[in-house]
Amino acid sequence: MESYVVHQLIERTLVTHPKQEIVSPGGRFTLEAFYRRVLRLAQSLKSLGLRKGMVAGVLDVNTHRFLELHYALSMLGVIIHTINFRLAPEQLVYSMEHAGDTWVFVSDTFLKMAEPVAGKFPNWVLMTDDAGLSVPEVMNTYDYEALIRDGREEIPDEAGKIEETDIFSIFYTTGTTGKPKGIRYRHREITIGTLQLFHHLALHDCGARVSSSDVFMPLIPFFHIHAWGMAFFPLYLGAKLVLAGAAGPEKQVQLIDEEGVTWLNMVPTQLHMLLETGKFENVKILTGGSPFLSGLAQRAREAGVTYSLIYGGSDQLGTAISVVPEGIPRDSDEAWEWLRVGMRPLPMVEVSLRDREGKEVPRDGKSLGEVWVRSPWLPEGYYKDAEKTAAAYVGGWFRTGDIGTFYPNGLLYVADREGDAVKSGGEWIPTGTLEAVLSEHPSAALVAVIPVKDERWGQRPLAVVKPEGSVSGDDLKKFLLEKVQEGRIAKFWIPDRFEFAEEIPLTSAGKLNKKVLRDRYAKQGG
Amino acid sequence: MESYVVHQLIERTLVTHPKQEIVSPGGRFTLEAFYRRVLRLAQSLKSLGLRKGMVAGVLDVNTHRFLELHYALSMLGVIIHTINFRLAPEQLVYSMEHAGDTWVFVSDTFLKMAEPVAGKFPNWVLMTDDAGLSVPEVMNTYDYEALIRDGREEIPDEAGKIEETDIFSIFYTTGTTGKPKGIRYRHREITIGTLQLFHHLALHDCGARVSSSDVFMPLIPFFHIHAWGMAFFPLYLGAKLVLAGAAGPEKQVQLIDEEGVTWLNMVPTQLHMLLETGKFENVKILTGGSPFLSGLAQRAREAGVTYSLIYGGSDQLGTAISVVPEGIPRDSDEAWEWLRVGMRPLPMVEVSLRDREGKEVPRDGKSLGEVWVRSPWLPEGYYKDAEKTAAAYVGGWFRTGDIGTFYPNGLLYVADREGDAVKSGGEWIPTGTLEAVLSEHPSAALVAVIPVKDERWGQRPLAVVKPEGSVSGDDLKKFLLEKVQEGRIAKFWIPDRFEFAEEIPLTSAGKLNKKVLRDRYAKQGG
Repeated sequence: MESYVVHQLIERTLVTHPKQEIVSPGGRFTLEAFYRRVLRLAQSLKSLGLRKGMVAGVLDVNTHRFLELHYALSMLGVIIHTINFRLAPEQLVYSMEHAGDTWVFVSDTFLKMAEPVAGKFPNWVLMTDDAGLSVPEVMNTYDYEALIRDGREEIPDEAGKIEETDIFSIFYTTGTTGKPKGIRYRHREITIGTLQLFHHLALHDCGARVSSSDVFMPLIPFFHIHAWGMAFFPLYLGAKLVLAGAAGPEKQVQLIDEEGVTWLNMVPTQLHMLLETGKFENVKILTGGSPFLSGLAQRAREAGVTYSLIYGGSDQLGTAISVVPEGIPRDSDEAWEWLRVGMRPLPMVEVSLRDREGKEVPRDGKSLGEVWVRSPWLPEGYYKDAEKTAAAYVGGWFRTGDIGTFYPNGLLYVADREGDAVKSGGEWIPTGTLEAVLSEHPSAALVAVIPVKDERWGQRPLAVVKPEGSVSGDDLKKFLLEKVQEGRIAKFWIPDRFEFAEEIPLTSAGKLNKKVLRDRYAKQGG
Repeated sequence: MESYVVHQLIERTLVTHPKQEIVSPGGRFTLEAFYRRVLRLAQSLKSLGLRKGMVAGVLDVNTHRFLELHYALSMLGVIIHTINFRLAPEQLVYSMEHAGDTWVFVSDTFLKMAEPVAGKFPNWVLMTDDAGLSVPEVMNTYDYEALIRDGREEIPDEAGKIEETDIFSIFYTTGTTGKPKGIRYRHREITIGTLQLFHHLALHDCGARVSSSDVFMPLIPFFHIHAWGMAFFPLYLGAKLVLAGAAGPEKQVQLIDEEGVTWLNMVPTQLHMLLETGKFENVKILTGGSPFLSGLAQRAREAGVTYSLIYGGSDQLGTAISVVPEGIPRDSDEAWEWLRVGMRPLPMVEVSLRDREGKEVPRDGKSLGEVWVRSPWLPEGYYKDAEKTAAAYVGGWFRTGDIGTFYPNGLLYVADREGDAVKSGGEWIPTGTLEAVLSEHPSAALVAVIPVKDERWGQRPLAVVKPEGSVSGDDLKKFLLEKVQEGRIAKFWIPDRFEFAEEIPLTSAGKLNKKVLRDRYAKQGG
């Protein structure tokens, strides 16, 4: 019996937790009611001709409908393309055409955005609670709720024939350069990768530990690896799931309070916004995707938020999660610092740090190397892109392009994208670490460190600082010199130049947009 | 990349926890040192001609050597037969011949036992720390430690070619009647089943919860489903593992104290012996295999031992584990009682309770049905026994022969082996429950309830009681009537006959031997 098939994940919890709730902007659904909607939807889609191997795009924020589509399409073997709505319009359409979307499910939120390209895709399904919404004429549109109303409440025969080696989904990376890269996952990899991630979180008594009594609210959108696996885990566990839809930080804080949310995932930028917005207590947060600076971690801790850091990505799924090492008291400063930076590879994941020649670097907490990952849930490569696949997936390993170091206690620190690091006199300067230390200065609201060309050293670091109050480059140099004396950074890491900027550009994923910064400051000389 | 292969489980922990300890009567080994021994052993065995698909039996208590064999044989694709040394000699030899053992690894503990049958099997390897031990001449014997000394410290090429669909092990059930039944497991099922069991334990904050900081000591022998999965889980997690060898209860208590053991598994009989023997604190115990009576649970609780109940077996692996239901205060009497009786199926396991016609019985906490199990880790059936396979494994389900009920909260109570239950006037009387209630009487040291023929009702229950002090059948009847009034049992459950016995026979697995009792009391009339 094949088991790691998405729609099979909830078959047991339907029996044990039929009354468990899924809360969505569109309503509250018991797991039982949710499943009945899934069955009806699947039957209607089958009648419309959706078949195994076809690709259906979904343009929506995190709602019960997007979640239903995960399970209904799984039953039919239709590949779900979770469309990255933060891509530039041109890239977004590219991704839909590249994936081969023949059906597109679009929520009212994105209807305006979809209209200009409606003619490019043959079939549209509109997801809305507003029965009177007018639809562009160019669209061949079905009404999602009507499909559910009209479908038979019976599991389609196809559901029993889906195997764990069938493709489940496709999604596209948000690259800062070039075209988005598509990655297809089989049922097996996407479910096993997800479950191992949460099992790891369950086994370690620290940070964003999960347990069966948690109430989950993903703030990572479904298009980012199915909300980092949240489309699956709460339903597999039988836990309450809260979907925030298009809620902003204020509404998110309100939901945490009203629904008793205890566990969330988000990128550091979102955490920053939440902490600015309101109070919430006893919540656990899994974060990652961009450097988790010590200033932000400190604020989270003071607000009563516990956290873990995750390392992974669209092309490797989950790889490592921060833990408190054995023997460190749970609530000590040291424990919190390890949670911010020190990650343990998930069970069954191998991480290897390699130098330019592909040789392993020592595990001494200092030597930096490129992070190579090997795990049972790596994808086969980039969809229809043999060249990029050959460059990144080599001999069973995925070469991440990030650089990192292993501490002697076996924990991994991922410092930086290799392209973003500074190589000064042949030595790496991890800009992520440097940014983290600089951000501890009370007058540094946001910091980005980028490489600039240097005749003598090859490259030298330049720090771009968004100031809070009055501060000079010399103040910051002096501050960093203290950190050198504390042993936290090397002296040669101290930037030669400091630039101050009102705003620091971010990517669509909320990361520092270093490409823009490199272009800007390269032009200004350096 | 195939991932659920036994020897791959420790590849990551070798990197992250190389200094973690495995403690065994024969010494203390770091994970690194253990792995080096495994490699050397595998290379030597390869030189001796052990090849993929061959079967090697192991006759040993829980030691580091038995554990090493799990991994070394896995690397070569040799099927490990974990010989059940509690079988009667004739059955034991039957199992070895039936499995097709061509190599037998025997520890000094079992050398005497093996001698009479030495000629039946071509190759023997002696496992001992006693270099001067004399070996029966009839044995073609290799010395285990010499094999390790002489082997190359290099992973054999074969290790990379083992797939998760290859057979990993074979073991035999301890049936009370008939020949032992052999069950073969593939790498995939044995590892996935094991890991899901422990992930379930990690996710629920109650009872025998496991975490990365636990120190594990299995008191279940390796021949019982690899010590209920303990041959794999601590090494996969990177946790300390203590192997008790042939230690009796006194030595076991000492090990708990000296090695800081926090988590153990054992059958209720062993728990009873441990509690009789000494004091130990802050330990968590996973128990199962025979009814976990309320008197024993109460004593455990008073001694500061937390517990969970597991349901499973050789022919279905792990199926369900007791949990505290949502909304019940963690330390309440109710919580402890649920932990003793109310089990949640593991994620991805389906349990269905069926009547004689195969129809599902209502989930009302009263209706009893036969427990049918469906899970991703069921074996294909009994080895070389099409008839018994056809009877037990039907349409993807394993028919356990146990009877149980589902409470309305979705928790499962397994009452009894169907063959042991009493059917009185067409209604089931779950003897396990009745035994549990009767055992609460201060003068009932041990209780077994068996069916005896009855002209009017078909069957009626007879209680066999090992008394502690002075007690009569009328005393016990009166006691049970009180329990009827408390709503805990039905009036028609009260046995018509009470028999008192000095000793109650147990099976090799420490369960009440009801077959012997049924024979005994059937002869005495009834």
